[in-house]
Amino acid sequence: MLIGRVVGTLVATRKDEKMEGMKFLVVRQVDIEGRDTPAYVVAVDTVQAGIGDYVLYATGSSARQTVLTDRKPCDGVIMAVVDTWEVDGQVKYQKFTPES
Amino acid sequence: MLIGRVVGTLVATRKDEKMEGMKFLVVRQVDIEGRDTPAYVVAVDTVQAGIGDYVLYATGSSARQTVLTDRKPCDGVIMAVVDTWEVDGQVKYQKFTPES
Amino acid sequence: MLIGRVVGTLVATRKDEKMEGMKFLVVRQVDIEGRDTPAYVVAVDTVQAGIGDYVLYATGSSARQTVLTDRKPCDGVIMAVVDTWEVDGQVKYQKFTPES
Amino acid sequence: MLIGRVVGTLVATRKDEKMEGMKFLVVRQVDIEGRDTPAYVVAVDTVQAGIGDYVLYATGSSARQTVLTDRKPCDGVIMAVVDTWEVDGQVKYQKFTPES
Amino acid sequence: MLIGRVVGTLVATRKDEKMEGMKFLVVRQVDIEGRDTPAYVVAVDTVQAGIGDYVLYATGSSARQTVLTDRKPCDGVIMAVVDTWEVDGQVKYQKFTPES
Repeated sequence: MLIGRVVGTLVATRKDEKMEGMKFLVVRQVDIEGRDTPAYVVAVDTVQAGIGDYVLYATGSSARQTVLTDRKPCDGVIMAVVDTWEVDGQVKYQKFTPES
Repeated sequence: MLIGRVVGTLVATRKDEKMEGMKFLVVRQVDIEGRDTPAYVVAVDTVQAGIGDYVLYATGSSARQTVLTDRKPCDGVIMAVVDTWEVDGQVKYQKFTPES
Repeated sequence: MLIGRVVGTLVATRKDEKMEGMKFLVVRQVDIEGRDTPAYVVAVDTVQAGIGDYVLYATGSSARQTVLTDRKPCDGVIMAVVDTWEVDGQVKYQKFTPES
Repeated sequence: MLIGRVVGTLVATRKDEKMEGMKFLVVRQVDIEGRDTPAYVVAVDTVQAGIGDYVLYATGSSARQTVLTDRKPCDGVIMAVVDTWEVDGQVKYQKFTPES
Repeated sequence: MLIGRVVGTLVATRKDEKMEGMKFLVVRQVDIEGRDTPAYVVAVDTVQAGIGDYVLYATGSSARQTVLTDRKPCDGVIMAVVDTWEVDGQVKYQKFTPES
């Protein structure tokens, strides 16, 4: 999986019938430090991610291994919302959660 | 999925028999801002996309998950026509639809 | 699929038994304009492509969806010989076919 | 497979239900000499790898071929801890194992 | 498939149980001219390749289509030892075989 930041939404009315009802999010890939990269993916959201969330996304056939995306022409899925990650002992990101 | 712009067509008379009747479109990959990139894919069209349309395409095994491409030697499929997408609150593309 | 130009052949006597009898072609990937790129693939030919032909090739699991390559350790297959393609209204390649 | 170095951990409470209980490690890809590269992957650990370990990781559908990751939306798995590797006759890495 | 040169070996004692007994070779990817590139893969050997051999390797799910790698978390396999290949009529490599 790679880490991305949800930066937007995409609307597509005319689509493969198997994709009806799917919500597409635009996810910008970030590097190991959490910085933006030019890479992105349009992914189906299975975990109610919101704009600004850092997420884990899977691509390729693994993107079809959720109940929502099973046997669908979908090659990108958000399968987790990231709380925090660290590299070489340094916290690179910490999700803000009001007083919890 | 990635966002692309349909820029042309490709004709191939001699092809694997499973691919008979398929329509190939040349799709230029665009970046998250909607700008052209050097990358492209030749994809099978399942949603009646036209030249100039911005589309979502899936690659790899996911490209075989449509009725049209099932069990075929096809690794790229257009599975949606994009109406609009936005990034960081800014609309990057809006499909022109005459008075509708 | 991507567009490539068949530039050569590769011979491998010692190979996985499932690959016996396969013909390997060296295919140079071309860009959307038909120009050479540094990328290449060694692909199994299923459509009797010849040296110099522009072809469509599929990679990954889709490369196993032909009768010839089914269940074989093959991740690249030529599945069509290109007649012509165009981009933004301009013909980028036209296969020469003597008086037909 | 590629060689990586385990550099950190990632926590994600909200995730696809199939991923419950999975441990995510941040793995930095190294080159053939063992040097860091900018590439990374967040992988599920199946071999009790620790921070600092050099590991082998598999991506794509192969990442689902362990008991732990079977049929899960996971496209990266650590499937071995590297003891040593050599290139052109030179040892590039040797795992330190106290007096064994 | 891509062409690589076997440059070394990798040892990993602690590994996924399905990978027991596998032999890992370090394979440096070469370009279409046979020159080294920075890319590499650690692949399972199914054809008794030796150090210095030029080989064909398959990646992704196709790497699991040999008897040895079936259903294993393996995404790289050497499936042929290259004898020779040519590009644009020029031989780029010829395996040395003493008087045979």
